[in-house]
Amino acid sequence: MAVETAATRTAVDDGAVDLGPAVALSCRECGERVPLGPVFACQTCFGPLEAAYELPGGDAESAARLRARIEAGPRSIWRYAPLLPVPADVASAPNLNPGFTRLHRADRLAAELGVTGELHVKDDSGNPTHSFKDRVVAIAVEAARAFGFTTLSCSSTGNLAGAVGAAAARAGLRSCVFIPHDLEHAKVVMAAVYGGDVVGIEGTYDDVNRFCSELIGDPAGEGWGFTNVNLRPYYAEGSKTLAYEICEQLGWRLPDNIVIPVASGSQLTKIDKGLKELIAAGLVEERPYKIFGAQAAGCSPVSRAFKDGHDVVRPVRPDTVAKSLAIGNPADGPYVLDIARRTGGAVEDVTDAEVVDAVKLLARTEGVFAETAGGVTFGVLAKLVADGRIDPAGTTVAINTGDGLKTLDAVAPTTGPSAIIRPTLDSFREAGLAS
Amino acid sequence: MAVETAATRTAVDDGAVDLGPAVALSCRECGERVPLGPVFACQTCFGPLEAAYELPGGDAESAARLRARIEAGPRSIWRYAPLLPVPADVASAPNLNPGFTRLHRADRLAAELGVTGELHVKDDSGNPTHSFKDRVVAIAVEAARAFGFTTLSCSSTGNLAGAVGAAAARAGLRSCVFIPHDLEHAKVVMAAVYGGDVVGIEGTYDDVNRFCSELIGDPAGEGWGFTNVNLRPYYAEGSKTLAYEICEQLGWRLPDNIVIPVASGSQLTKIDKGLKELIAAGLVEERPYKIFGAQAAGCSPVSRAFKDGHDVVRPVRPDTVAKSLAIGNPADGPYVLDIARRTGGAVEDVTDAEVVDAVKLLARTEGVFAETAGGVTFGVLAKLVADGRIDPAGTTVAINTGDGLKTLDAVAPTTGPSAIIRPTLDSFREAGLAS
Repeated sequence: MAVETAATRTAVDDGAVDLGPAVALSCRECGERVPLGPVFACQTCFGPLEAAYELPGGDAESAARLRARIEAGPRSIWRYAPLLPVPADVASAPNLNPGFTRLHRADRLAAELGVTGELHVKDDSGNPTHSFKDRVVAIAVEAARAFGFTTLSCSSTGNLAGAVGAAAARAGLRSCVFIPHDLEHAKVVMAAVYGGDVVGIEGTYDDVNRFCSELIGDPAGEGWGFTNVNLRPYYAEGSKTLAYEICEQLGWRLPDNIVIPVASGSQLTKIDKGLKELIAAGLVEERPYKIFGAQAAGCSPVSRAFKDGHDVVRPVRPDTVAKSLAIGNPADGPYVLDIARRTGGAVEDVTDAEVVDAVKLLARTEGVFAETAGGVTFGVLAKLVADGRIDPAGTTVAINTGDGLKTLDAVAPTTGPSAIIRPTLDSFREAGLAS
Repeated sequence: MAVETAATRTAVDDGAVDLGPAVALSCRECGERVPLGPVFACQTCFGPLEAAYELPGGDAESAARLRARIEAGPRSIWRYAPLLPVPADVASAPNLNPGFTRLHRADRLAAELGVTGELHVKDDSGNPTHSFKDRVVAIAVEAARAFGFTTLSCSSTGNLAGAVGAAAARAGLRSCVFIPHDLEHAKVVMAAVYGGDVVGIEGTYDDVNRFCSELIGDPAGEGWGFTNVNLRPYYAEGSKTLAYEICEQLGWRLPDNIVIPVASGSQLTKIDKGLKELIAAGLVEERPYKIFGAQAAGCSPVSRAFKDGHDVVRPVRPDTVAKSLAIGNPADGPYVLDIARRTGGAVEDVTDAEVVDAVKLLARTEGVFAETAGGVTFGVLAKLVADGRIDPAGTTVAINTGDGLKTLDAVAPTTGPSAIIRPTLDSFREAGLAS
């Protein structure tokens, strides 16, 4: 399944590929190592490949040096360049400098949910295109540069398409992205406004994804870097930065619980990887943490497998208001199950009505307007606290991965002006809103 | 015009008002000083009141100390607390921590416009509710707390309403905001989603603003803090942080040219104030800079006065796609004229078609999706560079004050998928987009 084009072969064979501490790709199933390149599946066992690193040791001196280097770094994901598959001078090439988004202490939400410990919202709507996808795309752009790709592509449920369009525009690359034809209006316009090509596919996200895998082996996709397919081993690493930032923003400590939305499952597995790296590097003290996955009931294959005690995830046909999580056949589902079980977490799901309620609860208590995916996460958080699976006395972080402006239709029917009045005091008094 | 309620009188009379380095309000026209309080117009001459400070001296030692303190501060506007009307511990109370948004070096846009020097985009869409209004509202919340107000209010063209709703929610205050009834859908939903009251007014923004001024003197608005009316002397100071951030992000130096959108004109005048404060504090070296104001042709009273050589601004009835700039009777218009003339800048305007073109140009070249107000700014930038009024060899900063997701309708008619296809290679090849 490895894809090599003239451009990529030259870059790789020259030994010119500089992706910083990443020195190879390794198979997550059989451990086989292959050189860095635009490949994503093991030739031996077809398992997924991921970036393998030579990272600094975890002794006190190395840890102090690394921490100082990070803290003196740019206010973006590039402060963590020593832990990412990117060249050391990554921040100097034109990119959107995503990351280092706000971590809000959420006392008012905590009070409503009955959380007595620290509750924090990691708000990734502050990224350049207002979703966590800017993190992963920024890494994929570096890989595309390293391998000589001049067109950036992806299959997307919407947020990724916008992130790829924007990042490609800024980097001076062509882009051509593939989305289900029936996405939210805002996501379609946002994907297209950066001037790249946007192709709507008549089908679900899983159809789009299958189509992109075909395209990679075809001359029609020659020389294209698909962020979440042939660049996936690099791209996916971007999610580790959520783990790094959460721990740094907590004062270099691990939280007790993290609640993370599950679409393909990649973000959750990479956050776990990031936490383990911080422990190994001596940047945080090792202690138990629990990882919780959140799905919408209308697309909950991983949650169902978790509840049924299965190791395999049976694909479903999605039907949910949380379109950015509507992946019926999640590639990293089994790894999510492993991590939730190993850490003592869980995978849970909520109905569309609960999703909308959670979006409004988060907005009303903390002033953070999440997209429906965020509603899934905070709805699951509420459920897990209510039934005692999240210890209310612990330190809990829940991630808002996207922006409410992209999924207005979910809340618009129940969200509008309290009154329409004439510009007179009498008209205002009649509306019953006066002091 | 001063408004005092039981709550505010107590706070002020106790001498308990701690707004950091702000020690009084002073009249911008006659210089009269009054104590800090929720007042906005001089009782002597009716001129606008603004915050007056006791700021650190500008000697080398003070400057170095202030700079070190700022650089060690939080990654938000609160790093500049020593220069703002807020208590020193401001960051510890729940707020949305706006600011410190990205400054993008814009080489691709520069090449298209013929700028040979440095061109930078200050991208305020990275704020919590995706406009610069989060800056000013965060300061107003502190003033509301200091004066004992429990309801936060405003007249708004949209962005401010969302910012007030979000900030009030997070601070645990009630909010009731007033908007023209025909605003963009996204802005209305966003204003309402935080759970406060939103009142649509049948009229223009200027009608809304007049109504709010009436409401302040009426029992119906008793105890309300109107961010941009009775809290305006504090609120407006938040825009100074744009000047601070731009200079810090340029490595503590002044740009040659800054292009700023003009609605009420407050932002432009406060950016100029901020630059002068940095010079006085010794944080940047004094040198000439030029300030340029940008308006939409459909609401260009200040631009018209500038071109006609007038000192007064004649109100207009707005008709433009840039609704967030649609203030026909801009309070700070005369000050904008002063500053543009004093610094050797200008005030210019562009048509709605040019606004849309500029939104798309910025997106296509730099991956930044601006709202129509940003289109106004970058359209005017293009015009000023083209006719030589901005020196192409200088360092120029243009501000994107808002987010394209809030004004989708402006670009949607000309922005969409390149093709809709079936998920097959044949269907894709027919679309003519293959490699």
